[in-house]
Amino acid sequence: MASVRSVYSSDDTERPEFKTNFGVDYVIHYEIPPDGMLRFTKTQALFQAHTDPERTEAAKAEASFVQLIEALASVGLATEVRRGDDTSLLIFLKIASEDLLKQQVYRYRVQDWLYGVRASAPNKDVALYFENEPVVEAEKLRLVYLLITKPKSEGGAGVTPKIGQWKFVKSVFPLHNHTFNKHFIKQLSTKYFIEENDINEIRDKFGEKIAFYFAFMQSYFAFLLFPAAFGFGAWLVLGQFSWFYAIVNSLWSVIFFEYWKKKEVDLAVQWGVRGVSRIQHPRSEFQFERVVEDPVTGEHVKVYPPLKRLQRQLLQLPFAIVCLLVLGSLIIFCFAIEIFLSEVYNGPLKQYLVFLPTVILTVFMPALTTVLTNFAEKLTVLENYETQDSHKAAFVQKMFVINFIVSYLPIFLTAFVYVPFGKLLVPYLDVFHVTAQHFAKDGKIEIKAFEVNPDRLKKQIIYFTVTAQVVNFLLESIVPLVKRTVFKAVKEAKSEVRHGNTRSLHNDPVEESAFLDRVRNEAELDVYDVTVDYREMVVQFEHALTGQNLGYLSLFSVIWPLTGCSFLVNNWIEARSDAMKIAISNQRPIPWRSDSIGPWLSSLGFLSWLGSLTSAAIVFLFNRDPYGPDGLPSNVKGWALLLSVLFAEHLYLLVQIVIRYVISHLDSPGVQKERAERFAARKLLLQETLSDSLVESAAGSNFTGPEKITRNALEEEARQASISSSRQATPEQLFWQRQRGAAEAIQIGRGLISQTAQAIKTKDQ
Amino acid sequence: MASVRSVYSSDDTERPEFKTNFGVDYVIHYEIPPDGMLRFTKTQALFQAHTDPERTEAAKAEASFVQLIEALASVGLATEVRRGDDTSLLIFLKIASEDLLKQQVYRYRVQDWLYGVRASAPNKDVALYFENEPVVEAEKLRLVYLLITKPKSEGGAGVTPKIGQWKFVKSVFPLHNHTFNKHFIKQLSTKYFIEENDINEIRDKFGEKIAFYFAFMQSYFAFLLFPAAFGFGAWLVLGQFSWFYAIVNSLWSVIFFEYWKKKEVDLAVQWGVRGVSRIQHPRSEFQFERVVEDPVTGEHVKVYPPLKRLQRQLLQLPFAIVCLLVLGSLIIFCFAIEIFLSEVYNGPLKQYLVFLPTVILTVFMPALTTVLTNFAEKLTVLENYETQDSHKAAFVQKMFVINFIVSYLPIFLTAFVYVPFGKLLVPYLDVFHVTAQHFAKDGKIEIKAFEVNPDRLKKQIIYFTVTAQVVNFLLESIVPLVKRTVFKAVKEAKSEVRHGNTRSLHNDPVEESAFLDRVRNEAELDVYDVTVDYREMVVQFEHALTGQNLGYLSLFSVIWPLTGCSFLVNNWIEARSDAMKIAISNQRPIPWRSDSIGPWLSSLGFLSWLGSLTSAAIVFLFNRDPYGPDGLPSNVKGWALLLSVLFAEHLYLLVQIVIRYVISHLDSPGVQKERAERFAARKLLLQETLSDSLVESAAGSNFTGPEKITRNALEEEARQASISSSRQATPEQLFWQRQRGAAEAIQIGRGLISQTAQAIKTKDQ
Repeated sequence: MASVRSVYSSDDTERPEFKTNFGVDYVIHYEIPPDGMLRFTKTQALFQAHTDPERTEAAKAEASFVQLIEALASVGLATEVRRGDDTSLLIFLKIASEDLLKQQVYRYRVQDWLYGVRASAPNKDVALYFENEPVVEAEKLRLVYLLITKPKSEGGAGVTPKIGQWKFVKSVFPLHNHTFNKHFIKQLSTKYFIEENDINEIRDKFGEKIAFYFAFMQSYFAFLLFPAAFGFGAWLVLGQFSWFYAIVNSLWSVIFFEYWKKKEVDLAVQWGVRGVSRIQHPRSEFQFERVVEDPVTGEHVKVYPPLKRLQRQLLQLPFAIVCLLVLGSLIIFCFAIEIFLSEVYNGPLKQYLVFLPTVILTVFMPALTTVLTNFAEKLTVLENYETQDSHKAAFVQKMFVINFIVSYLPIFLTAFVYVPFGKLLVPYLDVFHVTAQHFAKDGKIEIKAFEVNPDRLKKQIIYFTVTAQVVNFLLESIVPLVKRTVFKAVKEAKSEVRHGNTRSLHNDPVEESAFLDRVRNEAELDVYDVTVDYREMVVQFEHALTGQNLGYLSLFSVIWPLTGCSFLVNNWIEARSDAMKIAISNQRPIPWRSDSIGPWLSSLGFLSWLGSLTSAAIVFLFNRDPYGPDGLPSNVKGWALLLSVLFAEHLYLLVQIVIRYVISHLDSPGVQKERAERFAARKLLLQETLSDSLVESAAGSNFTGPEKITRNALEEEARQASISSSRQATPEQLFWQRQRGAAEAIQIGRGLISQTAQAIKTKDQ
Repeated sequence: MASVRSVYSSDDTERPEFKTNFGVDYVIHYEIPPDGMLRFTKTQALFQAHTDPERTEAAKAEASFVQLIEALASVGLATEVRRGDDTSLLIFLKIASEDLLKQQVYRYRVQDWLYGVRASAPNKDVALYFENEPVVEAEKLRLVYLLITKPKSEGGAGVTPKIGQWKFVKSVFPLHNHTFNKHFIKQLSTKYFIEENDINEIRDKFGEKIAFYFAFMQSYFAFLLFPAAFGFGAWLVLGQFSWFYAIVNSLWSVIFFEYWKKKEVDLAVQWGVRGVSRIQHPRSEFQFERVVEDPVTGEHVKVYPPLKRLQRQLLQLPFAIVCLLVLGSLIIFCFAIEIFLSEVYNGPLKQYLVFLPTVILTVFMPALTTVLTNFAEKLTVLENYETQDSHKAAFVQKMFVINFIVSYLPIFLTAFVYVPFGKLLVPYLDVFHVTAQHFAKDGKIEIKAFEVNPDRLKKQIIYFTVTAQVVNFLLESIVPLVKRTVFKAVKEAKSEVRHGNTRSLHNDPVEESAFLDRVRNEAELDVYDVTVDYREMVVQFEHALTGQNLGYLSLFSVIWPLTGCSFLVNNWIEARSDAMKIAISNQRPIPWRSDSIGPWLSSLGFLSWLGSLTSAAIVFLFNRDPYGPDGLPSNVKGWALLLSVLFAEHLYLLVQIVIRYVISHLDSPGVQKERAERFAARKLLLQETLSDSLVESAAGSNFTGPEKITRNALEEEARQASISSSRQATPEQLFWQRQRGAAEAIQIGRGLISQTAQAIKTKDQ
């Protein structure tokens, strides 16, 4: 894929292929295996010869292709086939007719209404309805994707990339809308704030899930202005370890968290997706143990015993422990070496050796993290969830554990182990000394006396919040670009070696040629092998990053108040770089819906809460005047530390309750819109479902009916009573006949009142 | 009112008045003032003479009476007037016709449906509908009460007892169903467990609010079996202050709390009241600042600025501090005297003086509590809530603070002040010594050396969980009985003095006489003057009591593990005594609906959580082996104490999350019923609202339509394309015309596959 410059800076007229998608909704990238047995499975092929002699891989691919086109046609998708690269086809899909699309949209909107996502049922006048509520691009693409991938039993084509019958389907992706993307990138890169309007546009093109991400980034950015400004002020005036900064910072994180929870609901309502998380997409990999008939709906439901799942979920505990042990020992090991080298060791090669821990970390950390992530995924698969959402949430939970250890453990070690206990622990580092002596020629190594370095904590924070962020950003945005460019060059070179000229191989019609080349490029973009839905996970990882930042901010920013400033810049760049990633360097994402930022929400809450504990502990430990003789906290009282932590935590929880209460009582446009919709829907339903007289009585404002009824009823009853009383009246009948109608009751009552009143008066006097 | 024995033990035939209510739904107790000016307002009367010379109080009462009967008649209530006691009338009400009742029921059920309380709209065939879902007594009584009390603008008679125009209306109450009550009491008093069936009966007669209370009592009783048995075992084997007991007890309280939250939802669904708390009854005392037109519904809404309310709510903080100071100083004062007297003082009159603190507490505590409760009520009124529910919840919150201090502060003092710091603090008690010396004749008082009494804590717990419970029960059940009997005797005596014979005064018809006497009795039952809805508050207070017990259990039972046994017995009796109260010694309650046990739920959660802290602290402080030289915790490390509390709390929170997760994944009959209803409703709505073809496509199971549509559409498109291509085709049209239909796409695709596969093979070899 070309760089941004080459795509968007050039004159529009120059690259007409970016201006049209030829009406294509989706492209299926279809892989073609070589004709004949695969060489490395010769024995396997021999073995297979008995059972299936003629079916070579290519033949299978061909048969599967036929099934694919038929399946797609059967659900109403038009197809065009073109050459892909040397070993693949491109199958272009579009929904065959407007009517079919509208039918699909209507159907899903009715489903939404039934699940309570939409307040009102779609209008029966379809033409008028679609004029009022048109279909946006994201909705169309989502429905077409569902049409392609849903099981046949649910009316889809049942195409599941890379699985079973469809193993030759490499990917199914929508084509980028480059006209919009260009506008989108331009908008974002020239603005400080992403505006409401931009987010709505994102929603229309990329779906609510991605729109939520940008909305969150935007809110976070706006909120970051405060800790950036306040942090700068605190840095100037209050210095490090200020309890005032800690309190304000904690308060800020509570307010932000509660604000976002409200905002989230608001956006969901505005976008009409409130509650869509209830409409769950089944996970195709779900393994069921038995099929049970639902006592309610009579449908056959695949069941996996929840107790069995619970047992497997318990494996998370050993998993977390293993993560802590594995990552923890690596971190502690490097930490120990580093301390030894930088603060104790004074021998030869010191200037090179200090880089040793960084090298070890850089080499082993990603490897270990990858292994553990794979492990987390296996564990999640083992837990065997019914729906994609619960699967993803469970995976994110495990990722959070890994992330947490990698991101925060080093700082925890410095703050709560190295500084307070450094003097006690450093002697144990003699083991390195002994090791070093082995390698030294004269068997003797210079060492200096150990001093706890109180500046280490600040340096570490600056490393994590500035240096690491920059490095990370570079790695994230430049490495993939280089990788892709190299890969593409290699591929093209190969192709050229084979055929001399690319164009002649593809044999494209002139007017399509540029477009097809563009699609071939898009097909190559970021096709991760990890899971089918990796593209979605990307957004989750971005959330992880943001969450990490928020974590540093609430957990440790009291050490270095400028953290907020750093993240303000970082956040601005991050949002733009993510936009680039989505618009250019990745395949266009499937525009899924969502009604929140998902499982990260609870992680953010957790970090914010933990921040109240760590901030209190750090302030207590380090903000002491006078310092000990070595400028360090020396006379720390354990109970006082714990008491301040305990106090801070409960203060935090109390404040959270109060803020939650206050925010829940604020009105908001989303909530108001929902109320309006529900009210309108109720009114409509009432009019439709009930007869007029009942509507009147149910509306209740002018309730005139009963009075007449009563008078009549009373007269009728009185008449009937007089008839029956002429016969034999029961005591009950007699009781109610003493006063016939209200008039008589009034008359008799008045008599009784004046009698009684008189009697009391007489007696009192 | 007669005692239980006299009401229910006698032969049925003897007391026919208990077998019929003469079809009466409600009775209005109407007060008659003496004729003429009230004596104590003579100056006022003189002043009034200018404006309203002829209107004496009695005349006003008469006019108001006429308005009352007219208002009642206008909403369809039949009335009969009878003499009450010497200074009152009894107005008997029944709904005038079955049709009106059904109309009302239908209307409210439609409202329920609109608010999502009922899953399905009432059937349009009214006769059939009421056959399937008949009206139970509680529903009828509730609707009639609403008819009487709702404002005229909402279709009611607008009768608000004791307020404004209706100040002569002393009370509005339904008549007891004594046939049922007898059966109910008999059931309960002969059973260990209140069964599901009994609770459903309670619901049908007394409404869901009271049914919820009994359901809660029943669940609590069943759950208490465990701590009773385990506590007994722990008492035998583990002794006091066992950490194992503390953990099990905490775990139990979490499980019970989470179980009940689930059960509550379950019951609400079964009773069809899930979500009724959303249908709020407006509070008639609500003061609005301005009327605003609702932007959504166009209705006029009375508004009180929430920020202003928030300001007033902040007064709760000083209120809580005042409560703590006032009650706290009384408690500390008595506590100090008691310690001085029992453990230091050894002078004359010791055997009498030891009762001094108890006397002081017994005299001042109820007085102070009453004052503070009144204050809490005023504060709640000041907070000016729109709805009855929020008003009540706010009041309960304040009551909880008072209750908490009264119930638990003494034990907190003993456990966390007296025992650890006793030796330090007791010297300050010398002030009593000096005081005592003043009164002593010889100016000298014997004292003994102070020793912290480690048994005091246990004794105190036993006092609170056994002695106080028994005393409380006796006060609650016997005192009102005595009071009532005395009052009635006095009243009758007065009456007799005046008229010689009651019967002759009342001048009742023979066949009604016994019934009217019974109603006169019921009218006298527990007419508290505090608030209009005191009858409801009774249930709240019962909850408070139960909550208090649960509090002792989770906070302090580690001190004396037999607490569970004590409460098991107590709970059994309490439930029966409450049943008696509801059925006999109080007016029949208005059968309100409810979907939970209300604001006490969060108090229970709070107590359970707090239990994890106190239990850990108590175990840590007292479970030490070896004890200090005086058998007391001497070498307590502050940090270790705080660490164990911190650890216990977070363990508790973690376990809570796990248990919540597990319980939320269990299926339950209520949830299943709800699912079934929603499913049925959805299906029905779909069929009603949408045309057949759309139903088919939305049902989605046999999705055959699109294929045909597609084929047609494709052919049509192809035809159109060929027409247009004969003219000037756009590149887009050309793109989609290269392969006409799926068949051609398949053909060309197969060709491409075999070519490509061949090419790869050739190249690879």
